Amino acid sequence: MITFQEAYQKVMTFKQDYGSEKVDLLQAVGRVLVDNIKADRDFPPFDRATKDGIAINYTAVKNGIKKFKIEAIVAAGSPKINLGQEHNCVEIMTGAVVPENADTVIMYEHITINNGYAVLNSEPKKGQDIHLQGSDEQKGTIVVKKDSLITASEIGVLAAVGKARVLVKKLPKITIISTGNELVDVHQSPLPHQIRKSNIHSLYAALAQEQIVPSQLHINDKKEEIKNEIKKALFDNDVLLLSGGVSKGKFDYIPDVLEELGVEKIFHRVLQRPGKPFWFGIQKETCTVIFSFPGNPVSTFANYHLYFRDWLKSSLNLPISKINVILAEAILATGTLTLFLRVKIKSENGQLIAHLIRENGSGDLTSLAQSDGFIRLDPKEVSYNVGEIVPFSPTRRIV
Amino acid sequence: MITFQEAYQKVMTFKQDYGSEKVDLLQAVGRVLVDNIKADRDFPPFDRATKDGIAINYTAVKNGIKKFKIEAIVAAGSPKINLGQEHNCVEIMTGAVVPENADTVIMYEHITINNGYAVLNSEPKKGQDIHLQGSDEQKGTIVVKKDSLITASEIGVLAAVGKARVLVKKLPKITIISTGNELVDVHQSPLPHQIRKSNIHSLYAALAQEQIVPSQLHINDKKEEIKNEIKKALFDNDVLLLSGGVSKGKFDYIPDVLEELGVEKIFHRVLQRPGKPFWFGIQKETCTVIFSFPGNPVSTFANYHLYFRDWLKSSLNLPISKINVILAEAILATGTLTLFLRVKIKSENGQLIAHLIRENGSGDLTSLAQSDGFIRLDPKEVSYNVGEIVPFSPTRRIV
Repeated sequence: MITFQEAYQKVMTFKQDYGSEKVDLLQAVGRVLVDNIKADRDFPPFDRATKDGIAINYTAVKNGIKKFKIEAIVAAGSPKINLGQEHNCVEIMTGAVVPENADTVIMYEHITINNGYAVLNSEPKKGQDIHLQGSDEQKGTIVVKKDSLITASEIGVLAAVGKARVLVKKLPKITIISTGNELVDVHQSPLPHQIRKSNIHSLYAALAQEQIVPSQLHINDKKEEIKNEIKKALFDNDVLLLSGGVSKGKFDYIPDVLEELGVEKIFHRVLQRPGKPFWFGIQKETCTVIFSFPGNPVSTFANYHLYFRDWLKSSLNLPISKINVILAEAILATGTLTLFLRVKIKSENGQLIAHLIRENGSGDLTSLAQSDGFIRLDPKEVSYNVGEIVPFSPTRRIV
Repeated sequence: MITFQEAYQKVMTFKQDYGSEKVDLLQAVGRVLVDNIKADRDFPPFDRATKDGIAINYTAVKNGIKKFKIEAIVAAGSPKINLGQEHNCVEIMTGAVVPENADTVIMYEHITINNGYAVLNSEPKKGQDIHLQGSDEQKGTIVVKKDSLITASEIGVLAAVGKARVLVKKLPKITIISTGNELVDVHQSPLPHQIRKSNIHSLYAALAQEQIVPSQLHINDKKEEIKNEIKKALFDNDVLLLSGGVSKGKFDYIPDVLEELGVEKIFHRVLQRPGKPFWFGIQKETCTVIFSFPGNPVSTFANYHLYFRDWLKSSLNLPISKINVILAEAILATGTLTLFLRVKIKSENGQLIAHLIRENGSGDLTSLAQSDGFIRLDPKEVSYNVGEIVPFSPTRRIV
C-alpha cells in the first residue's frame, strides 16, 4: 500500500489536456479561459466624465473666472465636441466624452446654474472627476489572464473587450458507474436488504458544479456484464468514476475486469481512511483515466474531492489552492493511516476554525450533509492540538 | 442620504417569499430545501458488514473455537440468512446483511481459508466491523434540515431516502435592465465615444450562480421608452435589477420614471463608495422589488453583492454568513462614506488575509477580474491597522 501523498502525486502525473472549444459569452461562466485576453482599446477609451456637472478649461479658473456660459450639453454616448471658448463650459453627464479643450469636471453639487450660466460655489482642482483615457488599462494590455476560471467578474471584462464567443478549455466526457446488487433506484422502495443508489447522484451533483454533465450507469455484480459495460464506457469517455466493487470481496470484480480490459493499474489501496481501497489506473490506448472508488458513500465522496477534483483542476491548468484550517479540538491520529475527518468550518475573526462533527464511519452518508469538508491528519505519534493548522478539502463553498 | 447600515437594513425588510415548487432530484442542486427531510427507514437499514470476510457468533470465540466451517456466502443485496450453527461461519461481503445469529465480522486479512474452513489468525473483538442498524440515524430522524442549500452532499442523502422529486423554494423572476446611449452590444465595434455593455452580462453570470436565468433588456436614454419598457417589466417580474440612469445627470430618468409608475422609493443615495447613487424601491401592487444600481461597473457589481445577494438569501430563508478577513496593510477611511475596497484574499495558516488591489475608481472594470471581493471600511478618524479584522463580501468562491 502507498501513502496518501504518493497516491496523490501519482494521480496528478496523469493529468490530461482535452483541448479547447468556443462557447457563447454567457455559456463561459465556470469554464477556464484558454488565451490571455487583451484590451482591444484603451480602458476607458476616452477621457470620461465621472460626475454629472460641467466641463471647463482650468486656465479660466486660474484667470479668476467663476461664471461660465454654457455652450452645450453632452450626454454619454454623444460624439466628442469642442469647448469653443476657454472661459465657457459645457454641461456634461457621467460617462460622456470630455470635450476637446476642457480638462476639469465640476459636479452639479458644486455649482449653481442660472439663465444659461454656471457659477462655481467652490474651488475646483485641475483635472478632477475625469477618468483619463487608458488610465485603467492601455490597449494591448492583458486584462484577463489565460487559465483563469471565468466568473461574473471576468464575464464583465470579456463583454467589454468584445468577446461574444470565448475560447475555453474543453471538459472531459465522464460516466459515473456504480456496481452492487444491493442498490435500487431512488424512486423504488428497497427491500429490507437493499438500499437506494446515492453515490452516482452525489457525484453527478458534484460534477455539475464543474460544468460537467456526466452520464450515469449502474451494473449488477455479474462479471461478464461489468466487463461488457466498462469496455464500451472506456471507448466512449475520457474519465470513468466508479463506485464500489474494489475491495476484497468475492464479487469485487472491478480490479480484475479493468486489468483484463487493458487498463494499467497505477495503484490499488492507499494508507488512508476513509477511502482505503481506492483503485486508480489508465487505459493507455483510449487515454481513459479511471478513478475507481470504494462504494461506501463517505469513501467515494472523500476520494472524489481529494483526488479527482485536483486532477480535474490540474488538467484544466487551474491553480490548486491549498486551504488550511485551525483545529477547534485536540485529535489523535496515531497508526499508519492518513485520516480524513468530517468537519464544520466556522469563519471567526478572519480565521477558519474546524469543528469535528459526530460521525459513524465511512458508511455514514447522512453525516456528509452536516459537514463542510475533510481535514487531513497525517499519522502522528502525539495528538494534534487545539489551534494546530491542518490541510482542508472543502466539499461545499465556505467563503 | 442614509448610511450603508441603514440602507442594508431597509433592503432586508423587503424580503419576499416566492413559494415552492417540485423539481427532479438532480435539478435540485443549488436550490433551497422547503421541508425537513426525514429518514424513511433506519440508517443503515440493517446490521451491515463493513468488511469482506466472515461473520461469526462471538460465543464460539469465547468457547475457544478458532476454526469455523463455512456454511454459506452472503453478498451485498442478498436477503438476510441465518447462521445455522453457532460454531460455524458465513463468508460475508461489505454491504451485506449480517446473518441472524451472527454478531461479529472478521476481515479476510485476519483469517486463512482452506477446504471450506476459516481459521482465525488473531483475536477478534465482539461486534467488530458491523455497522449497526439505525446507528447513523433512526427512522423518522431529520437527515437534512429545511432551508438547507442543496449541494452534492445533500443530494446523496435525498437520494438515499427516496426523494426522486424535491420540494424547493421558487426563485424570483428577474429582468436585468441597462440604460445608456453610450452602450453597444458585445459583438459590435464601438465608435470612439461608445463602450460595450458589460453590466448586464456580469449580472447575468452572477445570477446564474444562484440558479436564476434572468432576462436582459437594454433601453436608450429616452424617457418615454424607458417608462414603457419598465412598465411592462414591472408586471412581468418579481425583481428588476437596473444599471445606470440613477445619478444627477439630465438624462438620468430612472428615479422619476419609477415614481411615475407607482414604485415607492425606499431610499436613493447611500453614504458609500462605490455605489452611492443606489436607488431602491418596491411596486406594492405587483410586489416587484427594484434594485436600481449606478451604471459604473464596479458600483453595479458591488451593490449586487452587498445588497441583492443577501436580500435573495434572506428571501430564500438561507442564513447570511458574515465573513471577516484580516487586513494586510493599513488603510485610511476618514470622511463620511463607508468604503468598499477591492481585495485579493490569501488563505494562509487558517487565516483569510486581505490584500488591496491597485484600482482606479468605480469605472475600473478590469480591476474586478483581479479581485476576490470587497472589504467594508466604515468611516473612522484613525487608520485601519495591519491585522485589523473587517467585514468581507466575496465576489467569487475563495474556499
